[in-house]
Amino acid sequence: MCELLGMSANVPTDICFSFTGLMQRGGNTGPHRDGWGITFYEGKGFRTFKDPNPSCRSRIAELVQEYPIKSCAVISHIRQANRGGVSLENTHPFTRELWGRYWTFAHNGQLTGYESLDTGRLKPVGDTDSEIAFCWLLNQLEAQFPEPPTDWEAVFSFVAQSCDRLKQLGVYNMLLSDGEYVLTYCTNNLHWITRRAPFGQASLIDEDVTIDFQKETTPNDVVTVIATQPLTNDESWHKMPEGEFCVFHYGELTYSR
Amino acid sequence: MCELLGMSANVPTDICFSFTGLMQRGGNTGPHRDGWGITFYEGKGFRTFKDPNPSCRSRIAELVQEYPIKSCAVISHIRQANRGGVSLENTHPFTRELWGRYWTFAHNGQLTGYESLDTGRLKPVGDTDSEIAFCWLLNQLEAQFPEPPTDWEAVFSFVAQSCDRLKQLGVYNMLLSDGEYVLTYCTNNLHWITRRAPFGQASLIDEDVTIDFQKETTPNDVVTVIATQPLTNDESWHKMPEGEFCVFHYGELTYSR
Repeated sequence: MCELLGMSANVPTDICFSFTGLMQRGGNTGPHRDGWGITFYEGKGFRTFKDPNPSCRSRIAELVQEYPIKSCAVISHIRQANRGGVSLENTHPFTRELWGRYWTFAHNGQLTGYESLDTGRLKPVGDTDSEIAFCWLLNQLEAQFPEPPTDWEAVFSFVAQSCDRLKQLGVYNMLLSDGEYVLTYCTNNLHWITRRAPFGQASLIDEDVTIDFQKETTPNDVVTVIATQPLTNDESWHKMPEGEFCVFHYGELTYSR
Repeated sequence: MCELLGMSANVPTDICFSFTGLMQRGGNTGPHRDGWGITFYEGKGFRTFKDPNPSCRSRIAELVQEYPIKSCAVISHIRQANRGGVSLENTHPFTRELWGRYWTFAHNGQLTGYESLDTGRLKPVGDTDSEIAFCWLLNQLEAQFPEPPTDWEAVFSFVAQSCDRLKQLGVYNMLLSDGEYVLTYCTNNLHWITRRAPFGQASLIDEDVTIDFQKETTPNDVVTVIATQPLTNDESWHKMPEGEFCVFHYGELTYSR
């Protein structure tokens, strides 16, 4: 099992608080020793930090915790390898271009029979079930919508159906983003919370850190955090039911099925 | 104008020394204030650090200078924008997948008439001449070699011819790598040096730093550094002539035309 962390916000927001909690699960309070990665979007561009080493001992993870990179869309992952060796090319998130946008993907779970998924022109570089599923998903999308789409509801519906097909192969919890939308799919473990005014306090489960969001935000901020398990113990997280698909757009839940 | 820096080595080698010199040109000893980026390969995987801010004041550039990431293939770039705005999506290097390998590209120069280059299924995300040239080049390669090639001489010859076509559009100095090969093309400014035993000392032009490579290497190390301008003032750098194309493979010049 791995842990996922995503964020969608209406103003560029740093994810230091949530990332600090997640990183502790990378070999300290959790068993996820086989690498970690995080992608921050900045407009249409992105920056990814990743490491096949445990996150709790990573110099690069330290930088990310201390350096408040602000973003409206973040995808992060810490890994406990099941399919594919421990290497940089097998470390999530994965990013590929489609329709002139960079799409970033992270997966939690384990699939069987994934080797036969047709990825078309998108060739996997590593050998994880996750990267193959991602390439298959984008290849399906490109076949269905060869040109950059304008009807995003149709795209979301199609992604949801494609996720249903991947779920038939095993456990498939997913985060996917193009920097504007954050798409989530749940097989068994995915939680989310939307924070907005009036903001309160929250305390991390994995480390002795409390934050007063009121001091860190403005009244119009809307920030959604999505995680495998709740990261705080004094807030109400929504548990996604099996087979649910959600889309967050600049912090707001904008589509679900 | 921008500055390019590349490395090809037969053992994983850090590039801190050369990078320290290059970074000073990013707004300190040079005018290249519009971002910088560096890609390190690790096997088939890669990690990229980039920033649209000047490199001489970048916290992430500090990390890269202090943290000796070892790699057999590195591509780096500092930018003075001419085509395309200053943004993360316009910051080199650019990476795309072809034949199940990640290809990383950086360009120095300026092209005209590049808007009409056919990039096929590879859509540019930003709006630089460089990214369009890169997408066009990979699209040409994929059309010529639809399946992963085995005859690499044929690939190199085809890349060289494609670079000749891009040179007809203006100044085209290029670094391109798949993590195994480092391909270079020169229009007007590209220099390289291969360091091997017996190793000596070298002093950076841009900062008061001298390194004794003998202390940092083993006798079998072969390390080639490619840069727009020589980075040291006490070594003999090869100046590439106009229209020359070279391929370095684990430190050794393996193909040229």
